[in-house]
Order: sequence, then structure tokens, then C-alpha cells
Amino acid sequence: MTTILDVSRRAGVAKSTVSRVLSGRGYTSEKTRDAVLKAAQELNYRPNVLARNLARQTSDTIGLILPAGANVSRYLASLIDEIHKSAHAAGKDVIMRHIEDLPGQALSSIYDLIDHRCEAVLYYNASSSAHYEETIAVIDEEIEKFPVPVMLLNSYLPKHPNYCVWYEHEKYAAKPVEYLIEKGHRQIAYLSCSLVQRTAQARQIGYQQALSQAGIDYDPQRFIEGLPVSEDGSVPRDMCEVGYLACKELLARDVSFTAICCVNDHLAIGALKALQEHGLNVPNDVALFGFDDSPVLNYFTPSISSVILPSAELISYAVALCFAHLNKTPFPDYQQHHIDAQLVIRDSVTNR
Amino acid sequence: MTTILDVSRRAGVAKSTVSRVLSGRGYTSEKTRDAVLKAAQELNYRPNVLARNLARQTSDTIGLILPAGANVSRYLASLIDEIHKSAHAAGKDVIMRHIEDLPGQALSSIYDLIDHRCEAVLYYNASSSAHYEETIAVIDEEIEKFPVPVMLLNSYLPKHPNYCVWYEHEKYAAKPVEYLIEKGHRQIAYLSCSLVQRTAQARQIGYQQALSQAGIDYDPQRFIEGLPVSEDGSVPRDMCEVGYLACKELLARDVSFTAICCVNDHLAIGALKALQEHGLNVPNDVALFGFDDSPVLNYFTPSISSVILPSAELISYAVALCFAHLNKTPFPDYQQHHIDAQLVIRDSVTNR
Repeated sequence: MTTILDVSRRAGVAKSTVSRVLSGRGYTSEKTRDAVLKAAQELNYRPNVLARNLARQTSDTIGLILPAGANVSRYLASLIDEIHKSAHAAGKDVIMRHIEDLPGQALSSIYDLIDHRCEAVLYYNASSSAHYEETIAVIDEEIEKFPVPVMLLNSYLPKHPNYCVWYEHEKYAAKPVEYLIEKGHRQIAYLSCSLVQRTAQARQIGYQQALSQAGIDYDPQRFIEGLPVSEDGSVPRDMCEVGYLACKELLARDVSFTAICCVNDHLAIGALKALQEHGLNVPNDVALFGFDDSPVLNYFTPSISSVILPSAELISYAVALCFAHLNKTPFPDYQQHHIDAQLVIRDSVTNR
Repeated sequence: MTTILDVSRRAGVAKSTVSRVLSGRGYTSEKTRDAVLKAAQELNYRPNVLARNLARQTSDTIGLILPAGANVSRYLASLIDEIHKSAHAAGKDVIMRHIEDLPGQALSSIYDLIDHRCEAVLYYNASSSAHYEETIAVIDEEIEKFPVPVMLLNSYLPKHPNYCVWYEHEKYAAKPVEYLIEKGHRQIAYLSCSLVQRTAQARQIGYQQALSQAGIDYDPQRFIEGLPVSEDGSVPRDMCEVGYLACKELLARDVSFTAICCVNDHLAIGALKALQEHGLNVPNDVALFGFDDSPVLNYFTPSISSVILPSAELISYAVALCFAHLNKTPFPDYQQHHIDAQLVIRDSVTNR
């Protein structure tokens, strides 16, 4: 690769003169400037970005740490896109790092990106991480010691709310339950995926809180935790199948219900099939709610009601917060980003 | 941030001695080594990765260039994950860059990552890019001039097949058509998304080739190009809706058909709804094929047949090819990666 030395030799000037010309800083005669530019062009010289970054001790780069495999989530995909767009608009690059779920990974991966002179680091704390609480505790404790802004995504930092972005899953999950209660339902079942997922735990709490607020006793018989793999643990199930089997288990239990809320749309799609195979009519016998509002819900008969997560709002808040840290401007206000979920009512629910 | 100079001052030794101790290269006395390590620890010194990279003129980094918004594709998400996993297993990082679809972006973004001293650059050529052919031509011409290995993903380079990874969409798209012909169908319609997508163009060709090989005339009345936006161009349609409306248009035409193949699963889901609303029975009146094999196809009544793209095979080939370039080992063989599509037959197709 051509170096600045090659250019200086070709142009017959000192290396420092080449630097002056190419950086546009300091005086050089027009003749020298032309000679250097001509030599650089002839040799197809490209400035060494690493050297430039070293001199400035910054890489104009934002670090983004994600759990391995995380790209498959539609929410995370939008987050990645938005951060890239905003970073590039501000003349910055994004280095993404995918990490395994190991103890101590949070701090070591953050310091690793700081060592690469990232100007800010965003750490996505996966709901399914075995070290989810540990990560929150460690980052909440260490956050002021980092030499650059570090932000935690998908978790609330009790001591540092302006360094994190989080969902209020309990509140969102209560919404369809509250709606059904308002429409006269009292026997509302809930189909969850594995409670290893913090999101699933939080949504279960939201379901229970909505019942409790309406004075309805929580009946564990009406709650099913679907298994993500076959009974012998060998074959992973797709989420629709998890919902199908969870709903079959609910139907096999000695418990009545007039509505089902699901932790996500896929479980609701599977539940619809199980209900229809059982000879039940949706919505007349059983009302049904998904969660996430996939466009495909419109194409089932009946079309399936759902809940829209405030992903766009949360992403815009995360990006605004990150740039407030970088530019040392006031923090945006969480509430002002109108971060709340919305119901989408389709044919799968009806008044009692 | 603590520098090597701070450590040398604290330990009372020269900077070069600190370098020797921390790199483990060259001789130092035990006493000096202990003093340096103690000072580094006390000052919480972290080696400057930029400086280290500059000295080695490499960043141990693979560059990956993707179209903005590309994360949403499930295939691309798997590709990103696999490249990250293989790179990290080899002790390398991945810098991802999302770029807009502008003329000349291919070369400028590749050179930009080369300037960052990436050891290899992977460029994903989006099927929907307005500069798709331009990118292929330019890279096929320039590829041997790049100072590091550059690979093109999602396109075939006629002069450099070992520098690219591609799908044989024509061949894959012919498969369900051939299957239907074998089962006695002669009047096979095809629902496409916008032909701006190169993938859609290629799949249309595959459909026509399969008909032609069986001696069946192609009837343009049986081919519909679904519109991605509302008629006034203002509202984007989800893909299921594109299929629903395309199928309604087909039904409105004065043409008979006993089977429909679709460019993707979403169009097939929309088509199923349109056919059922029209009072037609799937599969008895019309057989139906999607493409991509989403798990959700099992949950429709009838379940929808589809085609599995050889994504896993292609990704493993891409990663193997990239590391063959990096390690200067022999190129893997495309054919040996068994890169072919597979049919998944469900209730939506039946013998005539």
C-alpha cells in the first residue's frame, strides 16, 4: 500500500510537506501543492485512517454491543438501522460487536470497545441473558467510571435513568387484559413463552396486575408457560407451535375461559389453530389477543387483535439520548417521547 | 485516559521498557517487569488498540457493507450472525457499514473500509439497488486492484466466481412449477412483487423457463406484478396485501388457472385470503405455492406449500470463501456446498 513516504519521494518534498498539503493545514506554495496532489493521485495514495485516528485519539466511531443471534429480532434490526443512520448523518461510523452470553462479558466487551477508542458505547442487554440482572447491577455501579458515555439498552438503570432505554412491559401487557375486562370478560387465560425471557416475566406480571386491579383472582390454571423445545429437549419449536401446544394444554385443563391473551403474535396464531381444531369459535366462544402486531394477523380468519409496541418511539429516544451524551446537550425527556403501547382491535375480539 | 507515558513515569522507566514488558517481547529484569505491571495496574492502563493496529498496519477487522435497512431480511440477519461468529472465532472483529443506494457507492465504501485497514471487505449487493448491474461491472473490473480481498455477496461476478456468493433464483423458482406440471397442472399463474427487485425478475424467468421446458406457452395474462404501494403511491403495502390484491386482479382477468406460484410466502398468504373470499377451494380448485418457507405457513387452513432457499448452505460457503481469501488457502467448491432449493409440500397442493 502506498504510504505518505512514497508520495513525498515522488513529489520530491518532505513527508511533513505532504502532510501539510493533504491535511490543508499550514502554508505550502502552489507549485508544491500541485506536485504533491499529482503524486498522490498517480500513486493512488489513500490517507491512513488509523494514523489519523491515533493522532486525534478518537475513531469517530460508536460501539454497539449485541447478543449473538440478535439480528433476527425485528425491533433490534430497526434499532441497528436507526443508530447507523443517525451516526452516519453525524459523520460517525458504527462498530458492531456480537457477544456470547458469558459472565463478566458486559464490562469486558465495553472496555474492549473503549480500547478501540469508540466515542460512545451502546450495550444491548438481552431479555434472555442468564446474566441480565448482573449486567444491570454492574453497569449501574460502574457507569460513571467509564471514560466515554456508555448506554444500556433494554434495561432500566435505577441510579442512572439517563443512561438507559427500556420498555415498560408490565404496563403494555396489562392493556389488552384491561380492554377485555372492560368488554365484560372475567375468565381470561394467558399463554406465555418460556419465563426465562425477562420480557415474558414482565408481561406475566402485567397480566396479573390488570386482573388484580379489576378485583379478579389470578388462577394459575389459566396461565400456561409454553416450552421452547420438544419434551425431550432435542428439537426447537417455532413460536407458533409453542402457542398451539400451550393452547392444547389449556384446553385439556379443567378450567373455563372466555378470552386468551398471548405473549406474542406467534403464540396467538398457534392458539387460533388449536381453538378451531377443538371446535371453538373465535371470537364468539373465545376472544384472542396477540402481541407485537405483525401484518400477517390480518390474513387469518378471524383476523387477530394485537398490541403495537412503541418501538419507533423507543428507538428515537435511544438515539436522541446517545447524541445528547456525545454532544453534551440536555437529555431528552422519556415521557415526551410518548412511549406507550397501542391496541389494534380486529375480528378475534368482541363484546360479551 | 492513561497513556504508556504515564505508566513509564509511575514505574520510573523508559516508555520503550513499558512497551517491552506489556508486549512480552524482549528482555527486562524481573524487578522492572514487576514495577511496570504494578504501575499499569494502579493507573488502570489499557493498551491503545489504535496504536497497536497502526504498528501492524492491520486492524484484525473484516468490513461488511450492507444496504441501509437490510437488517430486516431474515437471510441477511443470519449472514451477519455467521460472519460475526466465524470472525470472532478467528480472533477478528467485524465493522459493519450501512450505505445508501447512490451511484459510485460501491467503490467509495469499499475504499473507505480499506482505508480503515480492514483485512477483507464483504459487499452485499442488494437485489433492489438501482445500481445493481453497475456494482457488478465495476467490482468485476476492479477486484484485482484492491489491496485486500474484496467479496461481492448476492451477485455473480462473471470474471471472478471465487470472489462472490450468489443465489440461482431462476433454478429455484422453476422447482415448484416443475412439480405442479408433473402433477398434471398446465394452467399455472404466477404472482410477483415489483420487478424492480432483481430477485423477482430472476424468479419470473425461472417460472417461464419451467413452462417452456414442458412445452407450455407462457400467457402474460397469468402473470401479475403486484404493486408495493397504493395506487396513488402514497401508502406502502405489506407483502401479504400485495399478494391479496395481485390475486384479486388475477381473478378479475378473463383467464383460467388451476395453480398459483408466488414470489414469496407473504404473497401466497394474501392470495389464499383472496381465493377463499372468491369462494374457491385450495387445493381442490387452485393449488398454491409460497416461497421461503416461513414457519407460519403451517398455521393456515389449508397449510401452504413452499420452497426452502439454501440460505444456510450459501452462508457457510460465503464464510468459507472469505476465510480462504484471508488465509490464502484453496477456495471451497460452490457445488460441494450442495446449494439447491427444496420443496415443502403441504395441504395447499394436490394431484389433479
